[in-house]
Amino acid sequence: MTGDCFVIKWGCVTESFTTIGPNELFFGLTEMACSIFSKSTRALWKNYVKMSAVMKPENTKHFSSDSPHDKISRYPIPNRKDLPYDMVEAMEEVETKGGFLPNVFKVLSHRPAEFRAFFAYYNELMNKETGNLTKADRELIVVATSVYNKCLYCVISHSALHRIYSKKPTLSDEVIVNYQTANLSPREQAMLDFAMTVCRCDTVTEKHFQSLKDVGFDEEDAWDIAAIAAFFAMSNRLAHVTDMRPNLEFYNLGRVPREKGKGKSDTNVNKV
Amino acid sequence: MTGDCFVIKWGCVTESFTTIGPNELFFGLTEMACSIFSKSTRALWKNYVKMSAVMKPENTKHFSSDSPHDKISRYPIPNRKDLPYDMVEAMEEVETKGGFLPNVFKVLSHRPAEFRAFFAYYNELMNKETGNLTKADRELIVVATSVYNKCLYCVISHSALHRIYSKKPTLSDEVIVNYQTANLSPREQAMLDFAMTVCRCDTVTEKHFQSLKDVGFDEEDAWDIAAIAAFFAMSNRLAHVTDMRPNLEFYNLGRVPREKGKGKSDTNVNKV
Amino acid sequence: MTGDCFVIKWGCVTESFTTIGPNELFFGLTEMACSIFSKSTRALWKNYVKMSAVMKPENTKHFSSDSPHDKISRYPIPNRKDLPYDMVEAMEEVETKGGFLPNVFKVLSHRPAEFRAFFAYYNELMNKETGNLTKADRELIVVATSVYNKCLYCVISHSALHRIYSKKPTLSDEVIVNYQTANLSPREQAMLDFAMTVCRCDTVTEKHFQSLKDVGFDEEDAWDIAAIAAFFAMSNRLAHVTDMRPNLEFYNLGRVPREKGKGKSDTNVNKV
Amino acid sequence: MTGDCFVIKWGCVTESFTTIGPNELFFGLTEMACSIFSKSTRALWKNYVKMSAVMKPENTKHFSSDSPHDKISRYPIPNRKDLPYDMVEAMEEVETKGGFLPNVFKVLSHRPAEFRAFFAYYNELMNKETGNLTKADRELIVVATSVYNKCLYCVISHSALHRIYSKKPTLSDEVIVNYQTANLSPREQAMLDFAMTVCRCDTVTEKHFQSLKDVGFDEEDAWDIAAIAAFFAMSNRLAHVTDMRPNLEFYNLGRVPREKGKGKSDTNVNKV
Amino acid sequence: MTGDCFVIKWGCVTESFTTIGPNELFFGLTEMACSIFSKSTRALWKNYVKMSAVMKPENTKHFSSDSPHDKISRYPIPNRKDLPYDMVEAMEEVETKGGFLPNVFKVLSHRPAEFRAFFAYYNELMNKETGNLTKADRELIVVATSVYNKCLYCVISHSALHRIYSKKPTLSDEVIVNYQTANLSPREQAMLDFAMTVCRCDTVTEKHFQSLKDVGFDEEDAWDIAAIAAFFAMSNRLAHVTDMRPNLEFYNLGRVPREKGKGKSDTNVNKV
Amino acid sequence: MTGDCFVIKWGCVTESFTTIGPNELFFGLTEMACSIFSKSTRALWKNYVKMSAVMKPENTKHFSSDSPHDKISRYPIPNRKDLPYDMVEAMEEVETKGGFLPNVFKVLSHRPAEFRAFFAYYNELMNKETGNLTKADRELIVVATSVYNKCLYCVISHSALHRIYSKKPTLSDEVIVNYQTANLSPREQAMLDFAMTVCRCDTVTEKHFQSLKDVGFDEEDAWDIAAIAAFFAMSNRLAHVTDMRPNLEFYNLGRVPREKGKGKSDTNVNKV
Repeated sequence: MTGDCFVIKWGCVTESFTTIGPNELFFGLTEMACSIFSKSTRALWKNYVKMSAVMKPENTKHFSSDSPHDKISRYPIPNRKDLPYDMVEAMEEVETKGGFLPNVFKVLSHRPAEFRAFFAYYNELMNKETGNLTKADRELIVVATSVYNKCLYCVISHSALHRIYSKKPTLSDEVIVNYQTANLSPREQAMLDFAMTVCRCDTVTEKHFQSLKDVGFDEEDAWDIAAIAAFFAMSNRLAHVTDMRPNLEFYNLGRVPREKGKGKSDTNVNKV
Repeated sequence: MTGDCFVIKWGCVTESFTTIGPNELFFGLTEMACSIFSKSTRALWKNYVKMSAVMKPENTKHFSSDSPHDKISRYPIPNRKDLPYDMVEAMEEVETKGGFLPNVFKVLSHRPAEFRAFFAYYNELMNKETGNLTKADRELIVVATSVYNKCLYCVISHSALHRIYSKKPTLSDEVIVNYQTANLSPREQAMLDFAMTVCRCDTVTEKHFQSLKDVGFDEEDAWDIAAIAAFFAMSNRLAHVTDMRPNLEFYNLGRVPREKGKGKSDTNVNKV
Repeated sequence: MTGDCFVIKWGCVTESFTTIGPNELFFGLTEMACSIFSKSTRALWKNYVKMSAVMKPENTKHFSSDSPHDKISRYPIPNRKDLPYDMVEAMEEVETKGGFLPNVFKVLSHRPAEFRAFFAYYNELMNKETGNLTKADRELIVVATSVYNKCLYCVISHSALHRIYSKKPTLSDEVIVNYQTANLSPREQAMLDFAMTVCRCDTVTEKHFQSLKDVGFDEEDAWDIAAIAAFFAMSNRLAHVTDMRPNLEFYNLGRVPREKGKGKSDTNVNKV
Repeated sequence: MTGDCFVIKWGCVTESFTTIGPNELFFGLTEMACSIFSKSTRALWKNYVKMSAVMKPENTKHFSSDSPHDKISRYPIPNRKDLPYDMVEAMEEVETKGGFLPNVFKVLSHRPAEFRAFFAYYNELMNKETGNLTKADRELIVVATSVYNKCLYCVISHSALHRIYSKKPTLSDEVIVNYQTANLSPREQAMLDFAMTVCRCDTVTEKHFQSLKDVGFDEEDAWDIAAIAAFFAMSNRLAHVTDMRPNLEFYNLGRVPREKGKGKSDTNVNKV
Repeated sequence: MTGDCFVIKWGCVTESFTTIGPNELFFGLTEMACSIFSKSTRALWKNYVKMSAVMKPENTKHFSSDSPHDKISRYPIPNRKDLPYDMVEAMEEVETKGGFLPNVFKVLSHRPAEFRAFFAYYNELMNKETGNLTKADRELIVVATSVYNKCLYCVISHSALHRIYSKKPTLSDEVIVNYQTANLSPREQAMLDFAMTVCRCDTVTEKHFQSLKDVGFDEEDAWDIAAIAAFFAMSNRLAHVTDMRPNLEFYNLGRVPREKGKGKSDTNVNKV
Repeated sequence: MTGDCFVIKWGCVTESFTTIGPNELFFGLTEMACSIFSKSTRALWKNYVKMSAVMKPENTKHFSSDSPHDKISRYPIPNRKDLPYDMVEAMEEVETKGGFLPNVFKVLSHRPAEFRAFFAYYNELMNKETGNLTKADRELIVVATSVYNKCLYCVISHSALHRIYSKKPTLSDEVIVNYQTANLSPREQAMLDFAMTVCRCDTVTEKHFQSLKDVGFDEEDAWDIAAIAAFFAMSNRLAHVTDMRPNLEFYNLGRVPREKGKGKSDTNVNKV
């Protein structure tokens, strides 16, 4: 992410934005949602806690994008001080790196055990580094399937992530309206066709697998695509029942290209 | 389970059936699918391994209900000896207690990290001991939503679990065909209506919550119902993409009432 | 049916089961629902009455599987003594042969003229001995289309009949959940695809006929498949409006294979 | 029918029309489709044959509205001389009374036994003289449900019958396009709502029955409405699979009001 | 139109029918709905007014087919004297030529500016004289798409226009029930398939265009078909919200062939 | 628009952005799409041309947001010099005022007569100054219905217009994903419910009108809402068949609030 033409500008709608140091600016959401947990085969969560432990939470700055009266869930949001230490560590790490804490962490913290299982699973699927799916691919799957499911939280947050990973500021909007007419490569089109088959819970046949193979995906990629579509079938429904609302920061994230050669003093010029 | 009028008759279709010893007989599937993992807040999986360690896997008897040529997944099933130790322990424990290993363990073992996250989540949702949902309630939610999603594996296996927990040998069949005409209490009807709202990914409104409250559920129960429906929205889709097939044992499990007045010495003839 | 490995065990859930003599046991439902009426071209019903006359109703034993308070219809069930003689004869014959009287006879007897027309038509379609459809095929069509129509009575009763005719104890359950993933031959798959086209009332084209021919069916078979699907389009709707409930006996019928070499004295051991 | 302002003018589009004597003209389709068979409880078909026997088939004049090359069915139409005598009698009686033989008789004669069962059932449902449904009501149910099922034969023929019975030349066209905006009484609206519930195979609840009661129907009327909707669920599907085409005569039947004060000698002047 | 076998017989259901002179009779609706407006590129509406100006509105005879109490719109119908002169001219011209004023003119006159834009657009699409679509083709598109949209006004009025233009008195009825089984040429079938794709608002792909090309349509024809389907997507919805009712005259228009060899003096007596 | 807290930043993604003079900057898109045509009752289009004539097209600067190779339509886009003078005038006026020419003008110019009728109608509906609908309301109707129709062009362009008119930078995104969970007032919710009823072409009943009245709309507002939904039912379909693509400028328009305390001299850096 560093050095390229997108500046991740979350938090920018609040005055405190300019207090974020440049390090934070260039350590983007790119890493946030995905590398929360280590991937040791034995203790996903435990390792995560360790990984968090080496970070410096004392530097954390909290950007409460949602004013206290903004309801982000039907269910109560626990006070952070009442949460188990491992969860607090995780949340502070995410917040430090990304500049704000995505509401899904707050909303699901109402159920700590489910929180841990959810993010362990999420991390495994979205942060996988093997196979042929890029991170942008994974986010595009989430966008296309979450729109079908009319899930505000997932569409808004993952279209932001897609804009950042793909550096294509409008493609996710195209997919949101109609992935069938979006400017997609045949590979992306086949990937989303497969994901939508899973999303709609259609019967999956060899024909569906063949369509993936025709554009270069193998069977393990098929599993990845399907597992992401399946996981967000769950996530979308959890978001519906909790009435989870996206952080305001997500709406504009990744929409505006960074101007080349601009120094730090300029940042308020090209702020979104 | 012990002493009541249902005999769990799995394994009965194979000749090796009568070799099951009485200990196994009375430690039923009732406990199997649910108490796999301990519920310590920190290390779900790790604790599970410990718990498994105190059991006696040497007694395990494998009832391979599926002949070698029966395909239970589109994806390869790893040899057990190639799997991480914690997973082998878990599978052996389940097999010992229940008499056979449900195919979902075999199919998902293709992806160890996802296996762990899946069962940690599953355990949390289906084995929860607080709240107003009975285990039979939870299984009924799975049956109703999985039928909507046309998921063979989940319908066959969880209708078996429902028959066992509820001791109602025909109610799950009624729900499979049409939950709206099944002989359900108003409480069960409202529970399934809410679960189906989540299953279909409809927008959830206060009206839906009120319908639950009208029959005595609270908001935490609503979360439980929704989370189960959401988790199986994921599971059903994973089953579709892997073409997961149910063990034959599930089909008849819990269908036949134990005959009154039969001595224990008889029971091992037709028991699980 | 006699001599093979399925024992039809209806009535078995009541104590009176053991009073059924072996003759009844081996004279199965196989014949019951189908050969009710003779097939003379002139007087379907009249001939039926004659045929009934040669049977020995004095041997009939009534197994009232439904306790008096179980409601099996929204409409009143006439007392048998108030029914016309030909209908009583028919019902007694069916009951004698099968061990219990399927509730559809009781429910439709509320309208004698419709009862006669219904069963004359039913008999013609389901008991036809020409053409390439087996009895198991016919039942499978009923199961697949009745599930689509969410008809509890027809799914439960005809999946029982399918289990008996096909000697496949789980195939109908597979079809109930999702006929597209069931372990069907290409011939059966094409047959059900055609039946479902009719069931959904899609426009039928030559392409549909060709798909049948591709697997060996001719045009007369196509009519048979379509007529069965059409007749149960009617039956399912009548069952919905009367809220017709299946006899409990149907649920387990044909699920358990008869053990080879078992003598008569054993039958109550392995009874379901 | 005689003496009122509708003249049933089928057959009029052929030149041979004027050879129909006035007796036939005023003995209309009103009676044709309905009183085909007597309604003795014992021998529907047999009695029908008797009734036919007292008619004078030697007077019959066949108005072949379909030119020989017009295909009215996917299946062969038997030569009348090859059909069983009772069926020929029935067809000639219908033809004599109505002026032409509706194609459904020709198409279904391919299967004599099904032909008999079909018309016995049809007669029972559509010609019933008890209860609160008029003949126009029954035809309207057929029109509304058959449009939903996109059945050309049933819509065209039964909208003709409705025009005749109701003497409302445009109401069936309104129902064909959208029964919800048609100029229906609340009673008719409730009747069609119930019929459509059955037609769509929705689960029928007490609420549906109550809606009928609210406008004066009783439970027996509910059965009648449902049975007609169910029977045409079957008929529509049979028409689809046979590609049954309506006689041309049906299209204009009942559209034109008879002019008042016109003498009998004029009738061929103002024929449609 | 003159001299061929169809006589346009609207107004016939009222006593005043016979007062229509023969000129009007043979100057049919054929011209009415389509050539309302000239097609100069600059001033569609203005030129229309000019064209109207050369006509003789003093000859106009109003055939009020709707009795005063018949409601033809949810919204008030302005008195003609209160309408702008150009609209009055247009309405009188249409009425004079066609014998009655289609209700769409009355209903939309509630909004003069929208009235003008609507008819300017309508005229451009339906009266276009270039390209490969006949007027009958255009009307058939309207019928097929308006039935899908359950629009009573458009189905009844445009099926009348189709009968007149095509001289096929039953084809539009076939299309109303099920265009897929109607006796259409492959060209007409492809045309309606494309129109229905637009009507349902499906994503349009090159495959759809190719299907048109396969039967001889070019890309400009595709635009014409789509624009008509799109315009009536609007019209149908306007008709729904205003509850626009068709004039009674439309129902029978074009159904009856003119009798050959009949003198002109007869025609006004009994023609429908 | 001037002086408030939103800066419209279109054109910003091209280098030529800063060359826009301040005059253009403050004459925003707000007025563009709506006041294209005057509303004289006689000559909508002609008056438009006059109105255009008083403007100074010599100042116009064309911001070709789409590179030459970007396809914005399946159909050819005429060279502006080949278009009739009135259309060129209109396009130049829009371009001058808004900073770029929305692609709908280019795409529809392929059919000049339809272009004129389309924009005359559009202007009448979207620029109406009477009644209770604000311009933001009208745009929100377009957004909600166009998403249902999966129309990329209309969703992207009209959500931009909504952001500008409403000064709510995220509400249209909420409506795009799920208007039922968007943060709407009861009045807006009722407005969109009514619009969606029209959009889906449901039968409109008094109940629907009552829901509007309950929140303060009258019958004329109902017509307005319905007419907009109906007009975009047409527009969406035209966009589908032409594969109309939105200008890139629309995607970010209205997303970023103007920074407080910024002097006017700065504003032309990042304003529209």
